[in-house]
Amino acid sequence: MQIRVINPNTTRGMTDTIATAAQGIAAPGTVISATQPAHGPVSIESHFDEAISTVGVLEEIMAGERDRVDAYIIACFGDPGLLAARELTRAPVVGIAEAAFHMAALISTRFSVVTTLSRTGIIAEHLLDQYGFRHHCRRVRAAEIPVLDLEDDGNAALTRIIDEGRRARDEDGIGAIVLGCGGMADLTDEISEAVGLPVVEGVTAAVKLSEALVGLGLGTSKVGDLAFPRPKTFTGRFAHLSELAPDG
Amino acid sequence: MQIRVINPNTTRGMTDTIATAAQGIAAPGTVISATQPAHGPVSIESHFDEAISTVGVLEEIMAGERDRVDAYIIACFGDPGLLAARELTRAPVVGIAEAAFHMAALISTRFSVVTTLSRTGIIAEHLLDQYGFRHHCRRVRAAEIPVLDLEDDGNAALTRIIDEGRRARDEDGIGAIVLGCGGMADLTDEISEAVGLPVVEGVTAAVKLSEALVGLGLGTSKVGDLAFPRPKTFTGRFAHLSELAPDG
Amino acid sequence: MQIRVINPNTTRGMTDTIATAAQGIAAPGTVISATQPAHGPVSIESHFDEAISTVGVLEEIMAGERDRVDAYIIACFGDPGLLAARELTRAPVVGIAEAAFHMAALISTRFSVVTTLSRTGIIAEHLLDQYGFRHHCRRVRAAEIPVLDLEDDGNAALTRIIDEGRRARDEDGIGAIVLGCGGMADLTDEISEAVGLPVVEGVTAAVKLSEALVGLGLGTSKVGDLAFPRPKTFTGRFAHLSELAPDG
Amino acid sequence: MQIRVINPNTTRGMTDTIATAAQGIAAPGTVISATQPAHGPVSIESHFDEAISTVGVLEEIMAGERDRVDAYIIACFGDPGLLAARELTRAPVVGIAEAAFHMAALISTRFSVVTTLSRTGIIAEHLLDQYGFRHHCRRVRAAEIPVLDLEDDGNAALTRIIDEGRRARDEDGIGAIVLGCGGMADLTDEISEAVGLPVVEGVTAAVKLSEALVGLGLGTSKVGDLAFPRPKTFTGRFAHLSELAPDG
Amino acid sequence: MQIRVINPNTTRGMTDTIATAAQGIAAPGTVISATQPAHGPVSIESHFDEAISTVGVLEEIMAGERDRVDAYIIACFGDPGLLAARELTRAPVVGIAEAAFHMAALISTRFSVVTTLSRTGIIAEHLLDQYGFRHHCRRVRAAEIPVLDLEDDGNAALTRIIDEGRRARDEDGIGAIVLGCGGMADLTDEISEAVGLPVVEGVTAAVKLSEALVGLGLGTSKVGDLAFPRPKTFTGRFAHLSELAPDG
Amino acid sequence: MQIRVINPNTTRGMTDTIATAAQGIAAPGTVISATQPAHGPVSIESHFDEAISTVGVLEEIMAGERDRVDAYIIACFGDPGLLAARELTRAPVVGIAEAAFHMAALISTRFSVVTTLSRTGIIAEHLLDQYGFRHHCRRVRAAEIPVLDLEDDGNAALTRIIDEGRRARDEDGIGAIVLGCGGMADLTDEISEAVGLPVVEGVTAAVKLSEALVGLGLGTSKVGDLAFPRPKTFTGRFAHLSELAPDG
Repeated sequence: MQIRVINPNTTRGMTDTIATAAQGIAAPGTVISATQPAHGPVSIESHFDEAISTVGVLEEIMAGERDRVDAYIIACFGDPGLLAARELTRAPVVGIAEAAFHMAALISTRFSVVTTLSRTGIIAEHLLDQYGFRHHCRRVRAAEIPVLDLEDDGNAALTRIIDEGRRARDEDGIGAIVLGCGGMADLTDEISEAVGLPVVEGVTAAVKLSEALVGLGLGTSKVGDLAFPRPKTFTGRFAHLSELAPDG
Repeated sequence: MQIRVINPNTTRGMTDTIATAAQGIAAPGTVISATQPAHGPVSIESHFDEAISTVGVLEEIMAGERDRVDAYIIACFGDPGLLAARELTRAPVVGIAEAAFHMAALISTRFSVVTTLSRTGIIAEHLLDQYGFRHHCRRVRAAEIPVLDLEDDGNAALTRIIDEGRRARDEDGIGAIVLGCGGMADLTDEISEAVGLPVVEGVTAAVKLSEALVGLGLGTSKVGDLAFPRPKTFTGRFAHLSELAPDG
Repeated sequence: MQIRVINPNTTRGMTDTIATAAQGIAAPGTVISATQPAHGPVSIESHFDEAISTVGVLEEIMAGERDRVDAYIIACFGDPGLLAARELTRAPVVGIAEAAFHMAALISTRFSVVTTLSRTGIIAEHLLDQYGFRHHCRRVRAAEIPVLDLEDDGNAALTRIIDEGRRARDEDGIGAIVLGCGGMADLTDEISEAVGLPVVEGVTAAVKLSEALVGLGLGTSKVGDLAFPRPKTFTGRFAHLSELAPDG
Repeated sequence: MQIRVINPNTTRGMTDTIATAAQGIAAPGTVISATQPAHGPVSIESHFDEAISTVGVLEEIMAGERDRVDAYIIACFGDPGLLAARELTRAPVVGIAEAAFHMAALISTRFSVVTTLSRTGIIAEHLLDQYGFRHHCRRVRAAEIPVLDLEDDGNAALTRIIDEGRRARDEDGIGAIVLGCGGMADLTDEISEAVGLPVVEGVTAAVKLSEALVGLGLGTSKVGDLAFPRPKTFTGRFAHLSELAPDG
Repeated sequence: MQIRVINPNTTRGMTDTIATAAQGIAAPGTVISATQPAHGPVSIESHFDEAISTVGVLEEIMAGERDRVDAYIIACFGDPGLLAARELTRAPVVGIAEAAFHMAALISTRFSVVTTLSRTGIIAEHLLDQYGFRHHCRRVRAAEIPVLDLEDDGNAALTRIIDEGRRARDEDGIGAIVLGCGGMADLTDEISEAVGLPVVEGVTAAVKLSEALVGLGLGTSKVGDLAFPRPKTFTGRFAHLSELAPDG
Repeated sequence: MQIRVINPNTTRGMTDTIATAAQGIAAPGTVISATQPAHGPVSIESHFDEAISTVGVLEEIMAGERDRVDAYIIACFGDPGLLAARELTRAPVVGIAEAAFHMAALISTRFSVVTTLSRTGIIAEHLLDQYGFRHHCRRVRAAEIPVLDLEDDGNAALTRIIDEGRRARDEDGIGAIVLGCGGMADLTDEISEAVGLPVVEGVTAAVKLSEALVGLGLGTSKVGDLAFPRPKTFTGRFAHLSELAPDG
């Protein structure tokens, strides 16, 4: 089974962090191949960054289809392009935010999210609403760390995440914490130990959910609103997308 | 006051339809300038089409900023890129789906949506949820017309929309109908007359809402999650976005 | 276009404040005529006050119909009598609470309300629920100012509103503030400047929304539950309402 | 214990019907006194009728306070003036819609409402939302009977209500039916027998809930938003309300 | 009228407390018979305790059916076995949590719950959701008292409940308090006086609601999902349940 | 990794069906051990059956703890005793209803449930609400098959499930079907092929989710409301539960 982990930003160091975490959790028969777009933002910290990164995510899905990949993971906590990605393939596509929410809901009745910047909290809130987890999540908290500081200044970032996690534990009445950034994939154990709560991290959660879906023989439904897009002309810089011949 | 109406697809004929509708409703002092992206799909009928079109929408916002535009309209019923667009400007940005929902809620207690294809109904449902209008909308209905048929086969399309509108009137217990596609902007009066209900169309609604916001001196809040994106490096095909120097 | 602004309380000074704010924001072709009921409470600070004031609001709508008014504004933040008023006319009727909520939702993802007295907060909460904005509003806050103090002791009132607005900005994670009283219509700019957030005020918002609806040719739907009331006998003090011959 | 049943419309025949139903269900020690306003509509079939009737309801509450009444019932299915009425007294005030919803939720997991006219269905929907019973109610159905036909043409009305009740039983997956009009108070047994489901009627339900609250020593909370209204001047026709000296 | 009050735990002292409270509030013609299971936990402070206690509750319902009881009360704040109990009888069955919520909603617009242990707060939250009172309840608070301390160390417990009630009054913007444990049934008046808010207690509320339902001739609907269980074989320790011949 | 699959009813044939399905989907290193309670109903078709079966489920969890099981599955679509079971162990516990809902939400935006009897539909509805999937599920449908008919009359049952599934496909606007009974675990492929939609079955879904959680090192949170129950005395038939010394 081949799982393609797509880091939606273009920072290779973060792709490596994510790949290592994914590989570390994968089952024996699972091959992890990690990629990032050739084109796009070096980190995703706004709706704008997310929107631009989505193009690269979708192109990586199309590349994956040529490679006959079995499942895809979108490894940014906003799950950029998730529904569009699902339209492009029969394989399952799992976002790391949804993966973390699903897993957290299975081991606790209430959880809080600790994310990087408060300005992206709204993205998590909208996802919680859309996925149905509004009432399972007590609070979306931010450690106020720019994403790339996770790469560049790991220790300071870790301290701030742990501090915020402890506040969540003491104030929110929760049973678990969800880490709100793919770049935190290597910090799960340390945070869990320091905070004293189960910590659910999206990249690893998504790997296991992808294995589960593939194992079940379940892929994205091609009936209804996730069917392959109707073929059509794309102009200019996106003309190559006109060739999209899904399911061919 | 200059309002930039952005048709997110690349079909100039539809831009013209939209521009005509916008111009027809604009106040005396309002200048409508309509554009469409240079790059992207000729119509938007899926999450995928919408995701790709978003890049063009955002580039048109950036172009508009250089032109010192006073307000923006995103003229596709899925409101593609709406929150990202808002991050890029102090001006108001109005999506035609939200515009139509807001206006319909002011003249009726319950409405139904008549859109093009049932597969995009889920996009409208997600927007209704996010915007808060879930309970105001009785039903999202589809006339099952490909978007470009609105251009190419207007009469047949009109008949199907009217038929679906009459079913909505008879079965849904509603006071108004919302048209679910920017390409229907020129059909409002005919449909309203044939169905016997007020019909709310998003392009025209968005023009008046934009005029209203500008008149009130209200623009997109730059405090919190709609603040300008943090400047950063974009790679490859999107390198030009690194120069983004908002508010400079 | 003639817009009738109805101040639901019987304090002429507040009608003047509201009229001035409305006139100041109106488009060139818009004529603002402001009225208040002959009969009713001098301020509205309870469900009881609101219920009594509603009769006067409805009589002012009936008077407006004789004057062939194009749109109505109900200028009290509880939107008293809104749905009943809509039954009496083909013109649009806009409440200042709903107007402010709609506009705030277009320029921010989350807002807080600053109203006069905490005891009327429940009215705002019920409206947020009914209109669909429960999740857009982080918190309904009260500056604990009796309504008429806005007239009599403007400076002290302004200080308290600004203080509460700053707390909202610092604690609520919001992008905008909604002012929760028609009597604050002249304070918008000062509050916005002092707090550093966009401030949405209902009277001015309602003027622009009314102009928008009239411009669109949209009036209250007369199909379904907002149709004219069935004619019937009213007894005693309300016998004159039996003559109601709507749409005649 | 004295319970004041207020028929919000001015049709004495309906007051008598309601009084008979209330008296028939009352406990031995309970005295039922039924009244209707001197001023107002002869039936309530719109938001407008409801708004006007509210004044009379509130005046009847004030009269009841002089009579040292122990509990009040507002006997119209829209619960007109309920929160305002509660502000005027320490006694409990129960609306017949809420009473019926509460009782139906105790004997079934899901119920449907059968009301008079479809145009007032929106009133029931708004109450279901505000009271928290949205998901307990499968459907609000209308037998399309003008309210006074319940007085004037009882047999035909009964037939239509039974027919609609049977459709509810067969189509809605429910365990009980709520009757949506005070004027149906004498029809409960016949409808229940004909439909084969428990039928909950609001007037009788409200009598027993009022007895229950009085028995518990529970009255309307005077802390917070249901406290007595702040005393103030009312002008014109409502000047007598200025004398309101609650709790004195 | 005979009301069977079932204390779901096996502590006779608590049964006595509950019985005394029930008897004290019952109407003249009402006979209260209080029981507790022969088998089960001495207190209920977890999902596990609640699940085990449910068997005893259901057996007490079956015993009550042989005694031709008119109504049942389940006197533990988690309402254990409520829907299963309803399946076993035509009589009404009322849980004390639901009873308290219904009554509190009739005398206030917002209330808070004060329960024993924070770990059981989730049970109250799930019930608030299922019953429809999520938005009526501002907060579920815990006094952090083990249930049997209410028996053994009444004064210390009372002090903590009053302290928590005062915090609720000062911080939550509420009009009433709901006591979240059947063992508090004798403390209502003291708490209400000390806190200065109406206090709604479930046992007494359930007695009056049961009297109300019986008075109305309303019992559990036997149509649909609360019908008697399909007869079937139970094995082992539960073989006696196979004899279940409901309604015979 | 050892997964204990608990069939909550006492029909060994159904345990075998479930075990076969579980074993068939398990990963190479996973050992499936399937059990059913010694005491309880032969099938679960009501709240009553579910309540009684819960005791056996919990005793099987306790037995599993002695066997050092790694994860538990509760293999009845009502997820009986789920939260109580979680209190008893550090291992993950997965219900088959929740498992199916989670998986269905990952491959489709909207699904319908096809269950056995309409009377148990309310159980599924309550779970959908509690788990957050209310809006993902279009409709809960029943094939009106008694549970044991799945054992005894498999072909007739299969036909009815397929018929109902086709109606769901044609009427509900869905992308997937969830099978609402553990006894259908062997029918998934046939139904999916006949209906032409992905079919999600809970037993198999729960096996893969359990493997995923164990693989992630995630077990039930022991902080907060799923902590081990406070030790206490159980009386009579349940005295053996007093010995519960969790985590010792």
